[in-house]
Amino acid sequence: MAAPRTLVPDKTLRTLVSDIFAAAGTSREHADTIADVLVWANLRDIDSHGVSRVPRYLELFEKGQANPKPTIAVDELRSAVAIVDADAAPGPVALSLAMDQAVSMARSAGVAWVTVRGTVHTGTIGYYTEAAARYGMAGLGIVAGVPNMAYVGTTSAGVATSPLSVAIPAGRHPTVLLDMATSVIALGRIAEHRAKGTPLPEGAALTKDGRPTTDPAEAALPLPVGGAKGAGMSLVFELLASGLAANPIVSSYHSGTPEGRRHRQNAVLVAVDISAFVPVERFRGIVDETVDAIKALPPSDPDRELLVPGERGARTYAERLTSGVPLPVPLVAKLVGHARALGAPVPEGL
Amino acid sequence: MAAPRTLVPDKTLRTLVSDIFAAAGTSREHADTIADVLVWANLRDIDSHGVSRVPRYLELFEKGQANPKPTIAVDELRSAVAIVDADAAPGPVALSLAMDQAVSMARSAGVAWVTVRGTVHTGTIGYYTEAAARYGMAGLGIVAGVPNMAYVGTTSAGVATSPLSVAIPAGRHPTVLLDMATSVIALGRIAEHRAKGTPLPEGAALTKDGRPTTDPAEAALPLPVGGAKGAGMSLVFELLASGLAANPIVSSYHSGTPEGRRHRQNAVLVAVDISAFVPVERFRGIVDETVDAIKALPPSDPDRELLVPGERGARTYAERLTSGVPLPVPLVAKLVGHARALGAPVPEGL
Repeated sequence: MAAPRTLVPDKTLRTLVSDIFAAAGTSREHADTIADVLVWANLRDIDSHGVSRVPRYLELFEKGQANPKPTIAVDELRSAVAIVDADAAPGPVALSLAMDQAVSMARSAGVAWVTVRGTVHTGTIGYYTEAAARYGMAGLGIVAGVPNMAYVGTTSAGVATSPLSVAIPAGRHPTVLLDMATSVIALGRIAEHRAKGTPLPEGAALTKDGRPTTDPAEAALPLPVGGAKGAGMSLVFELLASGLAANPIVSSYHSGTPEGRRHRQNAVLVAVDISAFVPVERFRGIVDETVDAIKALPPSDPDRELLVPGERGARTYAERLTSGVPLPVPLVAKLVGHARALGAPVPEGL
Repeated sequence: MAAPRTLVPDKTLRTLVSDIFAAAGTSREHADTIADVLVWANLRDIDSHGVSRVPRYLELFEKGQANPKPTIAVDELRSAVAIVDADAAPGPVALSLAMDQAVSMARSAGVAWVTVRGTVHTGTIGYYTEAAARYGMAGLGIVAGVPNMAYVGTTSAGVATSPLSVAIPAGRHPTVLLDMATSVIALGRIAEHRAKGTPLPEGAALTKDGRPTTDPAEAALPLPVGGAKGAGMSLVFELLASGLAANPIVSSYHSGTPEGRRHRQNAVLVAVDISAFVPVERFRGIVDETVDAIKALPPSDPDRELLVPGERGARTYAERLTSGVPLPVPLVAKLVGHARALGAPVPEGL
């Protein structure tokens, strides 16, 4: 049985989360950024990457694995590439800064590739690629993390469920926003099935002993999407993100040292300045016409609307801006408890 | 029953194919490039994209859909982006030039993004990304083409099986080379199952009436890998490749005009200069250690070696350089027939 839910206005939620992080030692600016990224995920119905992660962030600060007061270094290596040394800053802080950097460099170079070294928990990377789209650019992002997915042909954690995101600005339509794990199903979705008591699809996960299962209670290890394809994408994302950062995660993890198992992530964010190629309005028109063509295809189920990536999320976002964010009552209580424990104010009505 | 095979030395095959294209009207340089790309695919056991495509190229020349004497324009838009207007040049010619351009620009900018507008049949795009790796760079590539895959939730061709390739140079190990279609199975692989009479995996293809099938004889439409994931990747590849080229394929195809259904492709090739980020030898070391870690994972089948992307292809490549390329006898006869018809020389022994 899922817990009962309460509707929290997004602004209230953002204030609560920002106050918690500021009380936990981050600057107000960083606290606002983290709150914005987490609440954005809830607004788009990616609850697994939303404010439910606040306790985990606080735990990472307490363990010294995340740094509430990071000294982030941005090194412009050449005209179109930079590296952001995150100093264990939370992902929302490091990746927001990195995408700003990419957008700024792409304005002159046409494209920019920014590598992020040594951050923690990037959240949902669609947030950052969509930020590029808000500037009329295409945004691409990949993240590499600690192995939590079976490599093809094995029954143990070999690589990570490393995501790929691509954001494309449209005109009439919402931004086309692909944000996918390289696993059949994201770990957060497994947790959602567990909470709801619904079975997993076939071929999505293994038990901790490496047996295939559809029972979310015993699912421990997601399988790569398309077998060799998902496993191969995850591996090359590790080599691109961690290799260029000279901060390998997969090889370090398998070396078996405690350091190798420590939570950390590397990332790549790319911005492409559309206006270097084609007038942005013409590009938006092509995107709109392409989305129209897809949505007009004959559906296999006549009662089911065809969707493009990001469309459902954009719709939920608009709804929740009005209705508020539905959150499990125990989660709200937990967040309020964290706020009180840290001496942070608790917004009225929570 | 598959046809009997004969072993043809790769040099002989390259000479035959180059002579055919030169006789069909291309420059010798372009003929050599096309021959190199096609034979490379055969050497790596990607026979579906190898010399079996020669008749199709000749047909595209005859129909005026491919241009044997293209005037290719390269426009350096900004320091890190360029567009190659292919003038309907065969893909091997346009994409080889585009990756050379990307590598050259990445040397100064750190990364370069080159869009290819209006080429035909790119062949296996791993060839071009691997070319970047030979210069010590990482190479990425995507291609957009005419719809030939079901979009998720439909039973008709909505998007293309548009591939993604990523090449990462290693040290002791061969280049890590991912080259995957966004479908569960490539069209060429379906043809191979048809030739061998072996069934397709479940969930890989539909009949032309939109029914799921494992019978390669009636399979007409590949399904996207991972449902929404493969369909979404294909769609964003179209928007990135064709949108930036201002040469939309998907929307034009669905408009139903004869022009919209004409075979053509757009592409994006990206080169990342590793040395901008980290000494290349250090990077190669990280790649080697990561590949070692993956290959040392416990396999689910103890008799089965774990492979990384491109490893099997590199091994077959080395073998076939010595043993020759195994080709169906009727295919060799067909190629020789084309050579004779065009007045091209036929190498001794064929």
